[in-house]
Amino acid sequence: MLTLYDCATAPSPRRARILLAEKGLAHETVAVDLRAGEQFGEAYRAINPLCTVPALRTDDGLVLTDNAGIAAYLEAAHPEPALLGATPREKAEIASWNWRAEFEGLLAVAEALRNGSPAMSGRALPGPVPYPQIPELAQRGAQRAAQFLDTLEQRLAQSPYVGGEVFSIADITAVVALDFARVVKLRADEQRPHLLAWRERMAQRPSMSL
Amino acid sequence: MLTLYDCATAPSPRRARILLAEKGLAHETVAVDLRAGEQFGEAYRAINPLCTVPALRTDDGLVLTDNAGIAAYLEAAHPEPALLGATPREKAEIASWNWRAEFEGLLAVAEALRNGSPAMSGRALPGPVPYPQIPELAQRGAQRAAQFLDTLEQRLAQSPYVGGEVFSIADITAVVALDFARVVKLRADEQRPHLLAWRERMAQRPSMSL
Repeated sequence: MLTLYDCATAPSPRRARILLAEKGLAHETVAVDLRAGEQFGEAYRAINPLCTVPALRTDDGLVLTDNAGIAAYLEAAHPEPALLGATPREKAEIASWNWRAEFEGLLAVAEALRNGSPAMSGRALPGPVPYPQIPELAQRGAQRAAQFLDTLEQRLAQSPYVGGEVFSIADITAVVALDFARVVKLRADEQRPHLLAWRERMAQRPSMSL
Repeated sequence: MLTLYDCATAPSPRRARILLAEKGLAHETVAVDLRAGEQFGEAYRAINPLCTVPALRTDDGLVLTDNAGIAAYLEAAHPEPALLGATPREKAEIASWNWRAEFEGLLAVAEALRNGSPAMSGRALPGPVPYPQIPELAQRGAQRAAQFLDTLEQRLAQSPYVGGEVFSIADITAVVALDFARVVKLRADEQRPHLLAWRERMAQRPSMSL
């Protein structure tokens, strides 16, 4: 049985939860209380020294400590349904858009939140090193997040899914980034009609309520 | 014939050059003069609206505009030698370490350089949007880059390659990150003996002089 070290309120483990659901893979959940700082405790450090969620323990005891490793593992061990693409062209488009949803989307919102929220003081980056907040980075993150929503709007005006013609991990990362962007008061609305329509289509997938 | 839009002095296109060489793939090169701002000109924007290098034009005219897409495409279209791993475990470890080399390594050095160098004023992020420099981010980037070299040192004390038991794209990204870190006066030396020994082994590969 797979075991996911998870936190219901955080965006990064949500990516793994949705991916597991889309692959049709059952798993056990261990909740890690990020608000209480459980990720910095000795017990969790022994599982994941990076002090981040998600982590995924596989059937044979391998512990994967980030979404990059989790996605590569699950796609290789459970190829169907393919979520990283089938042909070279699909794989390329999906990898590229997944990367953009992470760098331009998730990372930008995280910069805004972690550098702006008083509750995140001294935690401007995930992980065990306490980095101080940089207020200008909060501002830049919010600006970049809005820009990424424009990028998605343009993309989805031309393409049914973020990664192209098929549903893929790029949609998962983009949904998580978009929903996370609520913390900087950004959401899909009538000003970005293609983004809104795509998000409504995504909501029809049971995985997206996880 | 593949065509690489390249710049000899920049780290990102170097990743693609090394990858192509390790795959044994010949390609044509179009040099883009980043110092003169050629990436922002109309001619290059028509090729890559993101105004970044590398971009790779494939045999059938597909243009890939980032390393994520380029790596996924080349591995799928030209599987041998495998540089993203063979088994699920290998693929996971390599994806994870490639991601870390990018986020914790390359991105950290880029933050330091782009937010600290007078020549990069107004270009704190790649791409067409002119973001102002954030001096604290330059400082944090340099700190994170040094920390990533420590991470690599620990990893290479236990593992012959960055991604595990086999040479992979994670080594390529880590070499490029390490060499790029010279701009913040970091390099492999006797203080990090495993990192130094690995870099010397990497230097025996003809690709790494590209």
